Amino acid sequence: MYPELDTPSLVIDLDVVRANVAEMAKTAATHGVKLRPHIKTHKMPELARMQLEAGATGITCAKLGEAEIMADAGIDDILVAYPIWGEPKLRRLAALRERARVRVSLDSPDVAAGLGRLGRETGSPVEILVEVDTGQHRLGRPPGRPTADLVAEIAAIPGVEVVGLLTLAGHSYHARTAGELAEVSRREGTDLVETAEMCARDGIELREISVGSTPTARYVAGVAGVTEIRPGTYIFNDTAMMRLGVATEATTGARVLTTVIARSSAERVVFDAGTKCLTSDGAGTPGWIRAVGVPHLQMDFLNEEHAVARLDPGDAAELPVGTRVQLIPSHACSAVNLFDVAYGVEGGRVVTELRVAARGAVL
Amino acid sequence: MYPELDTPSLVIDLDVVRANVAEMAKTAATHGVKLRPHIKTHKMPELARMQLEAGATGITCAKLGEAEIMADAGIDDILVAYPIWGEPKLRRLAALRERARVRVSLDSPDVAAGLGRLGRETGSPVEILVEVDTGQHRLGRPPGRPTADLVAEIAAIPGVEVVGLLTLAGHSYHARTAGELAEVSRREGTDLVETAEMCARDGIELREISVGSTPTARYVAGVAGVTEIRPGTYIFNDTAMMRLGVATEATTGARVLTTVIARSSAERVVFDAGTKCLTSDGAGTPGWIRAVGVPHLQMDFLNEEHAVARLDPGDAAELPVGTRVQLIPSHACSAVNLFDVAYGVEGGRVVTELRVAARGAVL
Repeated sequence: MYPELDTPSLVIDLDVVRANVAEMAKTAATHGVKLRPHIKTHKMPELARMQLEAGATGITCAKLGEAEIMADAGIDDILVAYPIWGEPKLRRLAALRERARVRVSLDSPDVAAGLGRLGRETGSPVEILVEVDTGQHRLGRPPGRPTADLVAEIAAIPGVEVVGLLTLAGHSYHARTAGELAEVSRREGTDLVETAEMCARDGIELREISVGSTPTARYVAGVAGVTEIRPGTYIFNDTAMMRLGVATEATTGARVLTTVIARSSAERVVFDAGTKCLTSDGAGTPGWIRAVGVPHLQMDFLNEEHAVARLDPGDAAELPVGTRVQLIPSHACSAVNLFDVAYGVEGGRVVTELRVAARGAVL
Repeated sequence: MYPELDTPSLVIDLDVVRANVAEMAKTAATHGVKLRPHIKTHKMPELARMQLEAGATGITCAKLGEAEIMADAGIDDILVAYPIWGEPKLRRLAALRERARVRVSLDSPDVAAGLGRLGRETGSPVEILVEVDTGQHRLGRPPGRPTADLVAEIAAIPGVEVVGLLTLAGHSYHARTAGELAEVSRREGTDLVETAEMCARDGIELREISVGSTPTARYVAGVAGVTEIRPGTYIFNDTAMMRLGVATEATTGARVLTTVIARSSAERVVFDAGTKCLTSDGAGTPGWIRAVGVPHLQMDFLNEEHAVARLDPGDAAELPVGTRVQLIPSHACSAVNLFDVAYGVEGGRVVTELRVAARGAVL
């Protein structure tokens, strides 16, 4: 399997990726919403471009550093879905705005004040999405009056323009059934739409309702009033998405190619990739790391450079030292961020080398 | 705090690091054992050199890629504590052996066979440490007869020389008391020493008994017959070491400098560093991420670029947006591996920039 690659290596199945990209673009088109994929999942300009060519209207980044690298590749419509704080970042944002249409999200007048100064200095208001807490309890105030009041307070700051509301239903990752996932998604959308209506009654018209994660995207795209979805993981999927029922092994596009380096006992199988390839995300959740083609293999634990798995004693003859196996990460976004390079494959052959250009771009 | 740095940044306190390095060197010297620190923790040639200058006799690496980068920096005594498999890696090992004294560890005749071919081709046997499972259940067979038989089998392969036994008491990380830790350490050492005695009775004299992790190092260095300890984490320490009672906040040397970017509620504090700076290692363990100087802050969860923590309502006025706080990772080895650059500080000032040269060197 991929004899031209040594292990561990990150392998991207481009056929799967193209299908995932096309399917999400179709979902957005069907519901008449814009698609603004989050590129933190892949951090590769080539794949961002693939998403744009398939119909995405722009991209989402978490950090300014990611946005700068995407702008370097000619991408010119970027949402930095993160509160930008401090003079160095404000100066970088000013430079970025000279070569791309940039929006940012935040949840406080403190952060908006810095952006307002920037907007006034440059004579061009900074477009802001106010983040709403629809249940993740990370950023944002609750929907309804708390958010409407916050929107009014921020909108009063000279130099910023509040163009819409944004949320991430990160708590959807804890849904146990499709019904729960659908309900979380419906609330994610309706909470924002209803809050925007409240803002309108307050005299502030908001034109963007930006929602969605990969688990909720297919559901929330259909909520009336939603204008934009921002899924990220869907391009690669992972075992977390499989567990949520929005992906299958066949639709996972990012895998770590590994080699069995030890069979210390009849039951034990050790691969040459650990948390420094796959991360500890999801560790211990049943099936959090899956071995392609070896569904009966149970992952026991990962150390930094080892994945330790178990076979039934009856299967002891399987997977001798030297066997190559692809492991599906629990969380593609974090795993990809550990590699400098990924290998694009098609039909079982390596066809291209992709640099994970924005890997580590945390600033 | 460190106004010359933007956040998130990795900050290395060089005074703490020097003290940690000196203390472990003293532990080894006191007990008359060699110290071969594992450089996977820092991946920086400058710090490996500091360890050697303080008395280490060589270094340990997990992967060949790490060893190559350390050899590039002139380090010439390297244990690659990992089974080397496959022609590309064997060719790289051959090249590495031309510029450094290299030993490798493994736990199977399969892996030893490849090394034997290399040893015969080059006319210089490959020095091997056979890994023993003293309770971690990762690599190796149990101590005693199973390992003695394995040693005999491997020693019979032409082109390799079994010079000793090696173990990592990774299960020491689960110790709940100092007494448990001492007992795990004692067994780690005596299991290997007794197994080596069995090998000697079989006619195979082993001269190296290589043991130790950071938690067990201080205990196992004193076991009669142990010749070498290989701690890694001690140079930086982390909250896992604090929990095990072998470090305090004052002896943690690697921290992530962050900024509060949101105070979404009176209780909630959000920092601009998540799993892409700190990893998910240890997630959910009480106190797995600590905020320096804010002992009453409880970390709730990390997302990729956010750390979400909680204050008591009475402390709501603390930590306004823009406050800088240093976070101590749960696992320094994994967190450091996420950064390209670390900033060395002394007395509250940045004095040097250190490249994490072997970051991502998983091959």
